[in-house]
Amino acid sequence: MNPTIKDVAKKANVSIATVSRILNGLPGYSEDTKKKVTAAIADLGYQPNAVARGLINRRTQTIGVLFPNVSGMLSSEVLEGVERAAHEAGFSVIVCNTASSGSRTLKYLRLLQEKRVDGVIFASEDIKDEYAEIFKEMNVPVVLVSTASQKHNLPFVRVNDFEGAYRATEYLIHRGHRQIGMIGGSNYDPIAGVPRMEGFKAALTKHSLPFIDKMLVTNEGYRFNDGQQSLPKLLHQFPEMTAVFAASDELAIGAMSAAHQLRISVPDQLSIIGYDNLKISEMCYPPLTTVSQPLVKMGEKAGEMLTALIKEKELEAKSMYLPFTIVERQTVKRMK
Amino acid sequence: MNPTIKDVAKKANVSIATVSRILNGLPGYSEDTKKKVTAAIADLGYQPNAVARGLINRRTQTIGVLFPNVSGMLSSEVLEGVERAAHEAGFSVIVCNTASSGSRTLKYLRLLQEKRVDGVIFASEDIKDEYAEIFKEMNVPVVLVSTASQKHNLPFVRVNDFEGAYRATEYLIHRGHRQIGMIGGSNYDPIAGVPRMEGFKAALTKHSLPFIDKMLVTNEGYRFNDGQQSLPKLLHQFPEMTAVFAASDELAIGAMSAAHQLRISVPDQLSIIGYDNLKISEMCYPPLTTVSQPLVKMGEKAGEMLTALIKEKELEAKSMYLPFTIVERQTVKRMK
Repeated sequence: MNPTIKDVAKKANVSIATVSRILNGLPGYSEDTKKKVTAAIADLGYQPNAVARGLINRRTQTIGVLFPNVSGMLSSEVLEGVERAAHEAGFSVIVCNTASSGSRTLKYLRLLQEKRVDGVIFASEDIKDEYAEIFKEMNVPVVLVSTASQKHNLPFVRVNDFEGAYRATEYLIHRGHRQIGMIGGSNYDPIAGVPRMEGFKAALTKHSLPFIDKMLVTNEGYRFNDGQQSLPKLLHQFPEMTAVFAASDELAIGAMSAAHQLRISVPDQLSIIGYDNLKISEMCYPPLTTVSQPLVKMGEKAGEMLTALIKEKELEAKSMYLPFTIVERQTVKRMK
Repeated sequence: MNPTIKDVAKKANVSIATVSRILNGLPGYSEDTKKKVTAAIADLGYQPNAVARGLINRRTQTIGVLFPNVSGMLSSEVLEGVERAAHEAGFSVIVCNTASSGSRTLKYLRLLQEKRVDGVIFASEDIKDEYAEIFKEMNVPVVLVSTASQKHNLPFVRVNDFEGAYRATEYLIHRGHRQIGMIGGSNYDPIAGVPRMEGFKAALTKHSLPFIDKMLVTNEGYRFNDGQQSLPKLLHQFPEMTAVFAASDELAIGAMSAAHQLRISVPDQLSIIGYDNLKISEMCYPPLTTVSQPLVKMGEKAGEMLTALIKEKELEAKSMYLPFTIVERQTVKRMK
C-alpha cells in the first residue's frame, strides 16, 4: 500500500498539519523540521496525491494562464518564466493559449473556474467586464502580465509602453533622424496601442519635430502581415522618411520584408527599430535593433506574485513595471 | 448553496451516473437525455467541481504535455493543436515546457504523476528508460508527437523524417543542383537526427550523386546558432556546393544569416531548403522553401488519440504518419 501523509508525520515525529504546510510551501516550521520531513518522504517513497490534497487544503496547486490574442513567439517566452516560478513554488500550470481564437477567452475562463485553479495569470488583452465578473466569481487572485486594466483594479507586471516608445523614438532622433514614421498597433487598444503612439508623438514634440498624421499608419494587430502591408502605405504618404519605429518586432520584421521586396536597403536607405525583442529579432537579417521587454522575467515575476498571493491571502499585491532596454543590432544607421 | 450533481439528476429525472457520463463525455445515453441534462445544468447554474469529480470517476480530466528540448516556436504550434483537441474532448492541458532545461524532464514527469493526469503527450525527444518507467508507474496512456521510440512500444503521431529529408534533397536535385550539402542535427539523435541524414544520403545515391563526408556538417541541436556556425564550416570543406538542405528551419535561417554576412546571395549563389515550416520561415527574407510538418495538425491528432485512449481503455492505439508537403518560397534557384 502507498504510504500516506500520516505515515510521513509519524516517521518524522511531527503533526500532519506540519507535513501539509511543508508540502504546500507554507511558512511556520524550522529548517530542521523541514529536513526531517523531507527525509521521511524520501525514505517512505511518499507520493502526495494532488487530488486528495486539493480537498484538504482546498487548493488544487494549479494556476491557469491565459494568452488571448498573443503571438506564439511572445507567449512561449512569458510562459517559460511563469512555469519556472510556478514549479518553484509547487504549482502546476494549466495553459489556455487562445492565440488563434480570441473569442474563446470566456470559454477558457469558465474552464479554469471549473478546474478550481488557485489563481490566474492573464496576458496581453484588455480586461472586459465579463472577464472581471468571472474573476470575482472565482474568488482567486489574478495577475496581469504585459497588460493592465484601466477599469478593474488588478495587479500587473509589465513594461511602461509609453516610456518604451518614447525611448525608441528618441534613439532614432539621437542618431540624426528627423523624418521618422511609425507603424503602430491599434487605436482601440488602450494598453499597447495608444500608449506606444503617444510615446512616439511625445518624443518628437520634445525634440521640436512636429507630429503630422501622415507619419503614422495604424493596424488592427501587431503581426508580420500588418507590418508588411503598412510599410508601402507609410512610404507612400511619407516618402521623405528615413527611419521607422514599429510597435512590435513582428511589425518591424514585416516592414523589413516589404523593404527587401521594394529593394530598399535596411539600414542604408531606411532605419527600423522594433519593440519586444522576440527571438526572431536576432534571427532576421540584418538583426533588428529593438526595445527589449524582459519577457521571461515578466512571466517569472507574475508567477511569483500570483503564487505568493495564493499562499498569503492577506498579502497586498503590488503592480510592477520592469525595466526595458534598447538592444542595438544592425537596423539603425547613424545619419551624418 | 451551489447546486450539486444530485440536484441536476433529480431535475433531469435521470440517474447521477448518467449525468456523470455526460459531463465526462462518455457514451451510453440518448441525445434526448443529453438535452434534458444540459437544460437542467443551465437552469440550475450547476458548476461541476473538477476536484470532487476527480474522486468520483478517478479522472482529473487533465492531460500533461511535455516538450523537452524543443524550440518554443515549434512547441507553440503543436500545443495549439493539442489544446484544441483536448478542450474539445473536455480535458485541460498542463504544460511542462522544458525547452530551456532538458534535464528537468524527469522532475516534470514526477509532477504530472503527482497531479494524477489522465494521460501524457510527449514531444520530440527520445524516450529514456527512466521516462518509460514512470509511464508504467503512472499507468496512463502516453502518446508521442513528433518523436518515436525504438525501444518502448508507444504510439506516435509524426512525419516520416527519412522521407521528408529524401524529398527535400530530391527537390534540389530536380532543380538542377548536383553539389548539395547538408547541415544536419545530431548523430546521436535516432529520431530526427539520423533519419534526416539517411534520407539525404539515399536521395543522392538514388540520383547517382555519391555522398562524401565533406558534404555534411552535424550539430548538437537544431537551433539558429548551430546553423549560423555550420554554414561557414560547410562552405570551407565543400566550396563547390550550390545548395544546402538544413535539417530544421532554425538551422536554415541561421545558414541564411551567415550567408548574408559572407555576402553570398540566397538563392542566386546558394540555394537553401529547410525542414519544419515554422512561422519564421515566412518571415525571413527571402522567405524560406521548406518541408512542411503539419505541426498544429500533429498536435491535434495526438490530443484526439490520447483523449480517446483515456475514455476507452480497450482501444488499441494506432501510430500515424502525417503527410508532409514541400512549401515553395524563394530560397531555391533553378540551375541551368
